[in-house]
Amino acid sequence: MTRQILARRPAAGQQPPLDLHDVVAVGTRRAVEVWLEQTPDPRRRADELADLSDGQVRALVGLLDPATADDLLGTLDPHAAAEVLHVVPAPVAAGLVDSLDPDEAAELLRALPDAERAAVLGAMRVVRSAVVRGLLAWPDDSAAARMNPEVATVRPTMTVREAVDALRAQPAATADAAEVWVTSGPGEASGPALLGVVTFRDLVLAAPGQLVADLMREDVVTVEPTADQERAAHLLQDHHLAALPVVDDGRLLGVLTGDDVADIVEEEATEDAVRQGGAAPMDVPYLRASPLLLWRKRIVWLLVLFVTATITSSVLQHYEDELETVITLALFVPLLIGAGGNAGTQITATVIRAMATGGVRLRDAGRVVRKEVTAGFLAAATIALVGWLRAWTLGVGGEVALTVAVAAGAIILWASVIASLLPLLLRRVGLDPAVGSGPLITTLVDGTGLIIYFTVARWFITALGG
Amino acid sequence: MTRQILARRPAAGQQPPLDLHDVVAVGTRRAVEVWLEQTPDPRRRADELADLSDGQVRALVGLLDPATADDLLGTLDPHAAAEVLHVVPAPVAAGLVDSLDPDEAAELLRALPDAERAAVLGAMRVVRSAVVRGLLAWPDDSAAARMNPEVATVRPTMTVREAVDALRAQPAATADAAEVWVTSGPGEASGPALLGVVTFRDLVLAAPGQLVADLMREDVVTVEPTADQERAAHLLQDHHLAALPVVDDGRLLGVLTGDDVADIVEEEATEDAVRQGGAAPMDVPYLRASPLLLWRKRIVWLLVLFVTATITSSVLQHYEDELETVITLALFVPLLIGAGGNAGTQITATVIRAMATGGVRLRDAGRVVRKEVTAGFLAAATIALVGWLRAWTLGVGGEVALTVAVAAGAIILWASVIASLLPLLLRRVGLDPAVGSGPLITTLVDGTGLIIYFTVARWFITALGG
Repeated sequence: MTRQILARRPAAGQQPPLDLHDVVAVGTRRAVEVWLEQTPDPRRRADELADLSDGQVRALVGLLDPATADDLLGTLDPHAAAEVLHVVPAPVAAGLVDSLDPDEAAELLRALPDAERAAVLGAMRVVRSAVVRGLLAWPDDSAAARMNPEVATVRPTMTVREAVDALRAQPAATADAAEVWVTSGPGEASGPALLGVVTFRDLVLAAPGQLVADLMREDVVTVEPTADQERAAHLLQDHHLAALPVVDDGRLLGVLTGDDVADIVEEEATEDAVRQGGAAPMDVPYLRASPLLLWRKRIVWLLVLFVTATITSSVLQHYEDELETVITLALFVPLLIGAGGNAGTQITATVIRAMATGGVRLRDAGRVVRKEVTAGFLAAATIALVGWLRAWTLGVGGEVALTVAVAAGAIILWASVIASLLPLLLRRVGLDPAVGSGPLITTLVDGTGLIIYFTVARWFITALGG
Repeated sequence: MTRQILARRPAAGQQPPLDLHDVVAVGTRRAVEVWLEQTPDPRRRADELADLSDGQVRALVGLLDPATADDLLGTLDPHAAAEVLHVVPAPVAAGLVDSLDPDEAAELLRALPDAERAAVLGAMRVVRSAVVRGLLAWPDDSAAARMNPEVATVRPTMTVREAVDALRAQPAATADAAEVWVTSGPGEASGPALLGVVTFRDLVLAAPGQLVADLMREDVVTVEPTADQERAAHLLQDHHLAALPVVDDGRLLGVLTGDDVADIVEEEATEDAVRQGGAAPMDVPYLRASPLLLWRKRIVWLLVLFVTATITSSVLQHYEDELETVITLALFVPLLIGAGGNAGTQITATVIRAMATGGVRLRDAGRVVRKEVTAGFLAAATIALVGWLRAWTLGVGGEVALTVAVAAGAIILWASVIASLLPLLLRRVGLDPAVGSGPLITTLVDGTGLIIYFTVARWFITALGG
């Protein structure tokens, strides 16, 4: 029957869900299979694994066969899977890794400490470990690091019948592939020139006598091995491709498949979100990050912003006389700079995301600023009104109330200008626009906002010579 | 030859890149084909299209054949593609839409005003428009709204040879599909029960006489039509699937393919980023959003935060005597609450993203808070030291300097606690943790931070009875 993954309640006549402790207790392969079927969510799998003792994990590993090992380790995130390899002897770990696709195996091994990685690679089947070492040699976020080097290939001179026989000879390579790559030489990942592509569908529907050369599509979208993963992901996304061949001047190295793209997009989005919050991205999952690591990833920005923010103290010191004269002015400092910061953060968040997804480029700067300043006018008017009402209810007198209202409007308008320009400026000077934009904009607006506030105060408050 | 998409420089002997004005000027289909080959990036395509006059767009559309129309409209984002349909008569628009896959067609039509959508649907081939209307009937972000209802199906009782003949009869459905779905009834999107799946690869490698029933995999991951797109995307992602059948109690409605997943993940990430910045997501691309729309999407949150922030004024008013007595205390208000806000934003950004990608759940609350409070101690100590130095350099005297240092540390520690709890609390009460978390946390810390500041001041400053 069809497995309704999203239907959580067990179907009629089905036994109540096993948890991983039960599986180890029962100690049969069948129990593992039932658990895998009942627990499709990789995150739940990782949780239940984390609850096991090292001994229990070893016992569990003892129950796995290639199929179940592939199902389990293939779905876990690399760090959770690495935890498993941790507790078993290298040869056993090697056996598990052997059951994965090379690209999955490489991703998993990247999550291991160097020593353990070397041990596991040493214990793996030679052919396979050579392939995986090849992948590990590529830079961490390059397209080649994610590719599957075991691709199904045929020659253009083959008939469909001959091609089918050739494919029978490379079962591993063809597993869950839709495309067959037409290459010049033999099918090693090392050398053959990519000439074109045929789909298994083409082969099914073609006549056995037809030549591959007549079936193949020659116009193939490719990516070079050192291209950034994100660019490769966008190619697959934009062209609705199932697979993207990684080609180094004409020679086919491997294939990047669609299921990698979502992972890549998600990772990139996470890095941006964290940077937007003013911290540096981590390459370990949050729950596995130590407080010390969290501190290191954040303290630099926190200090930079703090030191920058000390300008606000100097600004206020410069207006100390005004404060002495009209102490009530102090009451609205957090309110006004807060509003400016919020307005700015709203804008940078939108603009940065539009830039990340390609919706906004440098040449659009003019349009962005015009748009945001117009929207800023509306927001400024709204907030000015509410600010006036609030100051009035505090009973601070008409002059201060007027000052607060005008300053609120002016600060929000000013925030709109710098917030819409800041991400574009950062990109212009070659920085990631997402870097600390949230806190950065807040801090910038704080300092400048105060100057606006007291300038306005001098205009409207007679006691200050207004 | 293989098209090296990422190689920007034209290959030897190739003419310099055309731009879309040239294409319209030349006015031949070949020119369109060359331009499409030279301009693979959908964003650049959209830009060049935006530069054309309506007349030029009509001329361009006149040059398209189904293949080029599919290549162009299929890669453009729906809103850019909609701009094209805008300027051409409904029958022509219908012709263009007919050349797309139903799911792409539906997505494009969602971007059109109702009247135009109706006109185009009316002018489309009846069979096709029925299929598209079916898709448009599903809620905007449901799995079914993104599925392709034209799927290749065979019967379990067929031999491989018969299956291949059956597939020859449904060319549209099999186009760039890797899987063939085994169903009970005939292949309408309406009704047949899903029994299992075979890949074209299975069919290629099987013997012609074999039964489909013996080849097919029955254990299929499926999703129900009304499931949230994001959940469907995670299923494809987690299980490394090329396609996810959309099944309504046992009956196959269509298939969600891998290339949709990246789009979905990207859209969701954008919505979160915008919410994190304290604005509501928009369903039009940024550059097409009017200032009025931007204002509407932001003003509610801006007001909520502003009104909340007015608490800071009341707090300060409550401590007005302290301010009068030691005016220098006012100098550090923005600095201290700013630092608290930044520390908080760093934390929420990390935690929210970890929650979005499934790395953190409610049950982890304890671990998250312990982790963040420990990291917070380190940050607090660092900032306290720097804060003391800064106050000292302003020459405000030892007591105030000490107050600033201790308050800075205390506020950051406090910010760590609420920032790590806030996203989990929001989720707990059923809200999206990303909602305005950046500005929200800043505003919360502002108010509470001031109370901490003046409490500390009362301890350490003799003039305040410390």
